[in-house]
Amino acid sequence: MADKPVWEQIGAGFVQLYYQQFDTDRTKLGDLYTDASCLTWEGAGYQGKEAIMGKLSSLPFQSIQHIITAQDHQPTPDNCVMSMVMGQLKADQDQVMGFQQVFLLKNIDNKWICANDMFRLALHNFGA
Amino acid sequence: MADKPVWEQIGAGFVQLYYQQFDTDRTKLGDLYTDASCLTWEGAGYQGKEAIMGKLSSLPFQSIQHIITAQDHQPTPDNCVMSMVMGQLKADQDQVMGFQQVFLLKNIDNKWICANDMFRLALHNFGA
Repeated sequence: MADKPVWEQIGAGFVQLYYQQFDTDRTKLGDLYTDASCLTWEGAGYQGKEAIMGKLSSLPFQSIQHIITAQDHQPTPDNCVMSMVMGQLKADQDQVMGFQQVFLLKNIDNKWICANDMFRLALHNFGA
Repeated sequence: MADKPVWEQIGAGFVQLYYQQFDTDRTKLGDLYTDASCLTWEGAGYQGKEAIMGKLSSLPFQSIQHIITAQDHQPTPDNCVMSMVMGQLKADQDQVMGFQQVFLLKNIDNKWICANDMFRLALHNFGA
């Protein structure tokens, strides 16, 4: 991994950490957000760590597992890293669903946090 | 549309313009990029207007039509707008395919340009 561009290392590292924590205990994802972070989850908007964690914590499933099938990373003009993730998830005993998620990562006090986060189930590709 | 947040108006306006131009004549998309713009297309990277336009112009189809089924927009910490698009596309006589695309839009000289662009076909949600 050391020979990959730094933004790809940052993005891939964040993605690994995020989904590992999400699948283990998503109520502890708060460290990855700030009070200025934005989340759009299935089209509904949440701003700030508290609102975001409220949403993620109240999602109506007990167990979840994400599998990442593709991820892309780019450096942005303002020294952020943008990451697009595609994958599959299985929540409780529901059927496996595709999803996509985008993160904008910003370095604040030597830590990469998630400034922007958008999530959609892949079913929107096949809507009416 | 006037009562929507300004970032949503900017993002939705760009998305409409982009796909309209893509479906009409994608060789004229160059005005939306700069020499610093990045494109990741199906995992392959292109930097700068010339490289990006070379890739988009050489895509192996004559006609294409995009249908947008969902789009989300957020303001970023550095006064950019991040937009995530989901939809379906039909290229020539191929079967309809789902896709997702993300844009990071930046205001340069009073014009919103695409600083970052990532595209993937939805089939990556259902890869092996």
